[in-house]
Amino acid sequence: MKDEFNKKDFQIIKKGITYPKGIKAAGIKSGIRFNRKDLAIIYSEKIADGCGMFTKNKFKAAPLVVTEKNLALSGGKLQAILINSGIANACTGEKGLKDAWESVKEVSEKLKIKEEYVAVASTGKIGEFLPMQKVKVGVQEAITGLRIQGGSEAADAILTTDTKKKEIAVRFEIDGQETRIGGMAKGSGMIHPDMATMLGFITSDISIKLELLQEALKQVVEKTFNMISVDGDTSTNDMVLLLANGLAGNQLITEKNNNYDKFLDALYYVAEYLAKSMAKDGEGATKLIEVEVQNALSNIDAKKIAQAVINSPLVKTAIFGHDPNWGRILAAAGYSGAELDTDKVDLYLKEKIVENGQPLKYSRQALHKYLEMSDEVKILIDLKIGKENAIAWGCDLTYDYVKINTKYS
Amino acid sequence: MKDEFNKKDFQIIKKGITYPKGIKAAGIKSGIRFNRKDLAIIYSEKIADGCGMFTKNKFKAAPLVVTEKNLALSGGKLQAILINSGIANACTGEKGLKDAWESVKEVSEKLKIKEEYVAVASTGKIGEFLPMQKVKVGVQEAITGLRIQGGSEAADAILTTDTKKKEIAVRFEIDGQETRIGGMAKGSGMIHPDMATMLGFITSDISIKLELLQEALKQVVEKTFNMISVDGDTSTNDMVLLLANGLAGNQLITEKNNNYDKFLDALYYVAEYLAKSMAKDGEGATKLIEVEVQNALSNIDAKKIAQAVINSPLVKTAIFGHDPNWGRILAAAGYSGAELDTDKVDLYLKEKIVENGQPLKYSRQALHKYLEMSDEVKILIDLKIGKENAIAWGCDLTYDYVKINTKYS
Repeated sequence: MKDEFNKKDFQIIKKGITYPKGIKAAGIKSGIRFNRKDLAIIYSEKIADGCGMFTKNKFKAAPLVVTEKNLALSGGKLQAILINSGIANACTGEKGLKDAWESVKEVSEKLKIKEEYVAVASTGKIGEFLPMQKVKVGVQEAITGLRIQGGSEAADAILTTDTKKKEIAVRFEIDGQETRIGGMAKGSGMIHPDMATMLGFITSDISIKLELLQEALKQVVEKTFNMISVDGDTSTNDMVLLLANGLAGNQLITEKNNNYDKFLDALYYVAEYLAKSMAKDGEGATKLIEVEVQNALSNIDAKKIAQAVINSPLVKTAIFGHDPNWGRILAAAGYSGAELDTDKVDLYLKEKIVENGQPLKYSRQALHKYLEMSDEVKILIDLKIGKENAIAWGCDLTYDYVKINTKYS
Repeated sequence: MKDEFNKKDFQIIKKGITYPKGIKAAGIKSGIRFNRKDLAIIYSEKIADGCGMFTKNKFKAAPLVVTEKNLALSGGKLQAILINSGIANACTGEKGLKDAWESVKEVSEKLKIKEEYVAVASTGKIGEFLPMQKVKVGVQEAITGLRIQGGSEAADAILTTDTKKKEIAVRFEIDGQETRIGGMAKGSGMIHPDMATMLGFITSDISIKLELLQEALKQVVEKTFNMISVDGDTSTNDMVLLLANGLAGNQLITEKNNNYDKFLDALYYVAEYLAKSMAKDGEGATKLIEVEVQNALSNIDAKKIAQAVINSPLVKTAIFGHDPNWGRILAAAGYSGAELDTDKVDLYLKEKIVENGQPLKYSRQALHKYLEMSDEVKILIDLKIGKENAIAWGCDLTYDYVKINTKYS
């Protein structure tokens, strides 16, 4: 398995989900929410290979059940994705499932494509039913409005408490053929490791075997979307979908060769960009926090520590307060359940401040200043007992997180 | 194993750690902290049987290492406990251990008792050394001041960000002989299940076999101290100590008879009272939250769900906002990792508001009012798939939590 990702073989483009050939999108106001875009459609002119990763929450929302079913029925083919914000269609029982299937049918009929080529996704309040009449009218309007320029509207329509659209695109060459990837996501609250995260949609015009597409998605999601956390809460609705329609015209990638690696590098970049954007735009966040754990006995141990630190409310509030409180960082590592030797741990916050488990002399004032001035704070923990590494991303815990979540429903 | 605790066979007394016969205490200002009590000693006139439970954090602070060692050396005998607040003596390496041993020696010499009968505990900032000169002078002053009336001062001296002293006592009869238990604790931040919690000290004048004392402590701690959470963070310094000096004069309890059960009931009450007091006085908390899970497949599953809900920042902020956001509660149950059937789950918040995984009609306004008016909020989740139950306690997540932890160090 490829473990290092190369960022040199592609160009970053300030576009989004419709950048790959043959992809159109639209984002409109259907009336689910008050005077705000709330419904998006992504459409591939050509039937695409598609795959997804879904929340592990036992209360899996209706649209996820339906989308997984359709991907199974179609054998990994996908042509359209309908996404709404405002209502999650979770904990809605039989009626919720019926509504999700009805949405699929609506998109299928209006676009004249097979039902099994349609995916649906929702985000918003749990326990409420979709207003199906509005959804139906909205689907018609969105389909009428599908266009290449619609990517940004779609990225807007899927947001909830996010403060910013999250979209990115890259291009690279495969055998001289320009190939593209575009992506968009929504995050903010209920962001936690383990595909439990958010909505993420990635399109490409690459031509690649379905099995390789699936493997690439899994590998990349585990190191990106699954390694971010805003509050440790895992939603009922999270999914990442990836589709590839082959319109770039490259020769079909059928094995893990150089071309596959190029794709993987580019896909990783897109996923990491979206994941970090979500962490940085966590509810109320003022800073992105990156926790890197080096030289753990196992990759699982490295992840456990990175996630324990990124999830610690005490670490998160300390960073909000520009407080280099390394004791809280070590304490989180200590309760993570991972193997470590407390007499070997080094900790870096801008500079090395703990060596072999004990504090070095450092300037509190300089570190305070660094934390105050930095939009992105990096914490590095070197365990010095093995060779495995992991990175997790999160954000600080602020008054605004409390404010936003006190007043949500 | 006794699973239900009876609250009828004892009387609750508004006293604390020095209520049992032969127990004295003192709490003084040693100068570790600025103009605030910071050093306490608990002393038993007679050598007592003693046992403890200690944090599972890998960064175990020096005083815990020393206390565990002493309990092993003495074969479960204990006569004095020295506790300081302000400095945790954690992540302090060899020097920290040396300081902890030196503190033991100081207490032992001044009290003229064996070193191995002395336990030490600390709470406060990680990574700083104890000012040993101040500690030594303080130990002398505290020992001089030891008295029955000193319990409340001691309970005060061990607090950090707590807003209230936590102390309680009970009395009950064993074979016509009055028997007493007293306890005190400090909590506030870094409160999380799994003996990772706080400092708790419980004394009794009961006469009971050491093995039974140990078993009673373990059973009770697992259902009380280990089931509370303020922020999911597990400290380096947490311990609970229990000592029994036999001065009540009851016949030695050597088996799990009625008398043992009486003791267990009373001990459970004391531990639950202290645990709930800690949860209620969590940093910035305005409300105690109790989460009860019923009819799970296993006790572990019941605990997992109770703890996931009590730890969820989204649930905690919703309750702070008086928002009956049941979707967040179910979502937390869903990602807890426990077995559940989403189509069977019932949820009660004052009244039944979710049945078989779907919302019932209820008055949002009435529930909002209930949450607004209640100091203690009870959430009951009935899984209806097994017979195992668990209860966890926590508190809401508020602006003041962020404030306190932003400005701690």
